[in-house]
Amino acid sequence: MTVSGAARGMLRTEVDRSLKTFLDHQRAVGGGPDVVPLFDAAEDFLAGGKRLRPAFCYWGWKAGGGGDDPAVFTAAASLELLQASALVHDDLMDNSDLRRGMPAAHRRFQALHEKEGWNGSAEQFGAGAAVLLGNLLLLWSSEMWRTCGLPAEALAAAQPAHDHMRTELMCGQYLDLLEQAHGENTFESALRVALYKSGRYSVERPLRLGLTLATRGAPPWTDALCSDYGTGVGIAFQLRDDVLGVFGDPSQTGKPAGDDLREGKRTMLIARTLAAAPPEAAAVVRRLLGDPALGAEGVATLRTIIQESGALAACEEMIKQYLHDALEALERAPITTEARTALADLAVAATTRDT
Amino acid sequence: MTVSGAARGMLRTEVDRSLKTFLDHQRAVGGGPDVVPLFDAAEDFLAGGKRLRPAFCYWGWKAGGGGDDPAVFTAAASLELLQASALVHDDLMDNSDLRRGMPAAHRRFQALHEKEGWNGSAEQFGAGAAVLLGNLLLLWSSEMWRTCGLPAEALAAAQPAHDHMRTELMCGQYLDLLEQAHGENTFESALRVALYKSGRYSVERPLRLGLTLATRGAPPWTDALCSDYGTGVGIAFQLRDDVLGVFGDPSQTGKPAGDDLREGKRTMLIARTLAAAPPEAAAVVRRLLGDPALGAEGVATLRTIIQESGALAACEEMIKQYLHDALEALERAPITTEARTALADLAVAATTRDT
Repeated sequence: MTVSGAARGMLRTEVDRSLKTFLDHQRAVGGGPDVVPLFDAAEDFLAGGKRLRPAFCYWGWKAGGGGDDPAVFTAAASLELLQASALVHDDLMDNSDLRRGMPAAHRRFQALHEKEGWNGSAEQFGAGAAVLLGNLLLLWSSEMWRTCGLPAEALAAAQPAHDHMRTELMCGQYLDLLEQAHGENTFESALRVALYKSGRYSVERPLRLGLTLATRGAPPWTDALCSDYGTGVGIAFQLRDDVLGVFGDPSQTGKPAGDDLREGKRTMLIARTLAAAPPEAAAVVRRLLGDPALGAEGVATLRTIIQESGALAACEEMIKQYLHDALEALERAPITTEARTALADLAVAATTRDT
Repeated sequence: MTVSGAARGMLRTEVDRSLKTFLDHQRAVGGGPDVVPLFDAAEDFLAGGKRLRPAFCYWGWKAGGGGDDPAVFTAAASLELLQASALVHDDLMDNSDLRRGMPAAHRRFQALHEKEGWNGSAEQFGAGAAVLLGNLLLLWSSEMWRTCGLPAEALAAAQPAHDHMRTELMCGQYLDLLEQAHGENTFESALRVALYKSGRYSVERPLRLGLTLATRGAPPWTDALCSDYGTGVGIAFQLRDDVLGVFGDPSQTGKPAGDDLREGKRTMLIARTLAAAPPEAAAVVRRLLGDPALGAEGVATLRTIIQESGALAACEEMIKQYLHDALEALERAPITTEARTALADLAVAATTRDT
């Protein structure tokens, strides 16, 4: 049994509608025609995305016994603003050119500068505008959350988890920078980055927020569901991301082939490759990884080494195992069949996607 | 009559104490030893500063009839986190090396990377860490504000102004980027940037927040005080900043001499110079302004042109006039003598400082 396409479509429609209403409100209070490019970039950026975080939040709410209050869609949608902020800043920090098949935000503003023939460095203008756009999205995510219209007691109960998620996200991204800077990574540190950089705020925290909004007191079973199902799905979600970053189809991912290799991302896939590959092959990985000029041939070489070392199969096995354990934990939770089915579907969708 | 040094000292002590308590709390919930450099950087960064924004907020609170609730110091102190965030991101966007006589945040993390001999680009690591540090400070400023301990009704009354201030700050900084990109600036556009980029969030918004927290309903006289006193002092504050950015003493400002000239800042001082200087001198300004390699001689040349054009005197006259009108408006407000005296002192301090 799967949650109907109608339910998924309804969630997306409501999330899109909430985001549009919020952005229109911000445009109305915003600062005149000159800042329109910021708002347009925010809108274009928010049009994409799988709405995965809002879905975990919404189904957390339903699992916690939450009713049909439409304000929950606004609360859930605010997580897309947080995610958009992280992506805008991420692409700048990683010096990525593309996002979802479109120019990354800093490149978009750089192109605006070039098109208008303005003074000074177009690249510096693009970077500055991307910092500010990411900040706006970050601010708006908490404003939208706070003003969603759910009862004050529900919001107050969830606020510590909301605050914690945001600090944790920034610390996790710093750990990711460190991991690349340190060069060598261990299984343990790769797992820690996967959890803090993405797993937590993509799955576990949205789920926890929805559960806490609905239950207010967050009874013990919600904690168990968050750790045993949420954390597992979150890690598997990031491992899938790591695999797609190396083996993904650009027409699906919207990113150039092997982008993570060019950026030198130190993922579980790389940790396992370096641990298992023969010394000469490992030396090739160390040499090519993080080379900004890495071409199609280099990407192909690295892909072959990663596959032949068994690292790809090992990561796929990890994803399968985390998903399996998460679905088992889901069976134990005292929630409705509807919520259980939806969360099972979501877990599968988050970890077996090709985009 | 001036507010006693004791009152000023008390405010600083309480603001410092609140910031320390908040940061210690964040360290406790934070993510382990690897992220300590982020917290240390935040702490060092917050140790400096004139505590001007908390002072306008605190005296707004007192002017609005607020009592002796120590939670107001926490609310006021949270504005320092917002300011620290803006400075960390500003220095990155402007490519500035120094802040308050210490390395700017991105340079600090770049130096950490170099010292540790890590992999990859030290500059890119520094930039990434500065983006994340600024984000943390931005998030924390709203968390500290919300959890300050003032009654929920007071916070709810002030929340729209708080949200508005933050969006406005980002839009104002974008206008500043645009102003530099456009190259030519008019008196009108320079004034708009001065107001949106800094004037509002340095003076008018903190004052309004304090007044609204205390009065909750924000009666009409508070609006008049905010526009007639707050906006005027805010603009004069930024004009003073512009003058210090060109003529300030590095040992006082903590920034290299003529830093704004090197960065090509399009301020009122420059708008007035370009409008009033003879054509050959104006051409020199256009040629040297924004040259990253501008040395002591170039700075001296530009200073002479700015002075001889009468632009410096005109800006000083503007500051005097804004201050005068603000103090007149202050006389009309129905507030206690203590608050009036403190706000008059603050207006003078904000606009006649040398640091």
